[in-house]
Amino acid sequence: MSENVRDSQAPHGILETVIYCDNLVAAREFYEQVVGLPVVSVEPGRHVFFQVGPGMLLVFNAKATENSTVRIGDQLIPRHGSSGASHFAFEILPKQIDLFRKRLVNSQIPLEAEIDWPGGGHSIYCRDPAGNSVEFATRELWFDD
Amino acid sequence: MSENVRDSQAPHGILETVIYCDNLVAAREFYEQVVGLPVVSVEPGRHVFFQVGPGMLLVFNAKATENSTVRIGDQLIPRHGSSGASHFAFEILPKQIDLFRKRLVNSQIPLEAEIDWPGGGHSIYCRDPAGNSVEFATRELWFDD
Repeated sequence: MSENVRDSQAPHGILETVIYCDNLVAAREFYEQVVGLPVVSVEPGRHVFFQVGPGMLLVFNAKATENSTVRIGDQLIPRHGSSGASHFAFEILPKQIDLFRKRLVNSQIPLEAEIDWPGGGHSIYCRDPAGNSVEFATRELWFDD
Repeated sequence: MSENVRDSQAPHGILETVIYCDNLVAAREFYEQVVGLPVVSVEPGRHVFFQVGPGMLLVFNAKATENSTVRIGDQLIPRHGSSGASHFAFEILPKQIDLFRKRLVNSQIPLEAEIDWPGGGHSIYCRDPAGNSVEFATRELWFDD
């Protein structure tokens, strides 16, 4: 990222993307074994956290975070938790498209859709064990750089 | 990002982070005017999309995406949509902490929590118009680089 962007008045990225899965063991197996993300932190029944390049994917059990009373000093960590199928997209390189398609197929995970975007970019969609819509997309979907 | 990371077998980042807001007009006002994100795409009643550094924040009305029948070629874009308070974190620089605290205060948005993490990093939390838990965090919360 250029120094220009880093110095702007806006946030210069997203540090944590969050999804919810009731079954964190199944979520870990999917995101670690199939997607290939390194695990950073595990708290059984509450969360499993992964690194994704320069940011983090946080997977929580909403039952734990909706009623959380975790405090850091005198501050209560704000409560959160949603239900239903959420969505997010991993960024992959064009040369990784075949790799990820193959990994999903080999793990018997249905490819729900595969799209060549009219404006550029390519996406593969599947579901994680909680039913969240997981997309593997190339950067050209949004950016020309 | 180093070429080493880009060439790994894992996704090398998150391209799209998604949240849901019923009131997209209010969501746009918050994320554009208060947070300072550039708007990339608007479809009234369905979505407003923002750029955040090298990625995207997609804000959807779940009522639209849960029953979507949008097709690209012969592919149906997978349906998604969740309800409840979700969570994510913007990445800000240490020198931007005062800026964002001031912006929230000036916009009369309550600071729900402000945390100095024991291992490093600093976070400010507030709620967006839909009640999602929005965090402004410095990179040191997760990374030593």
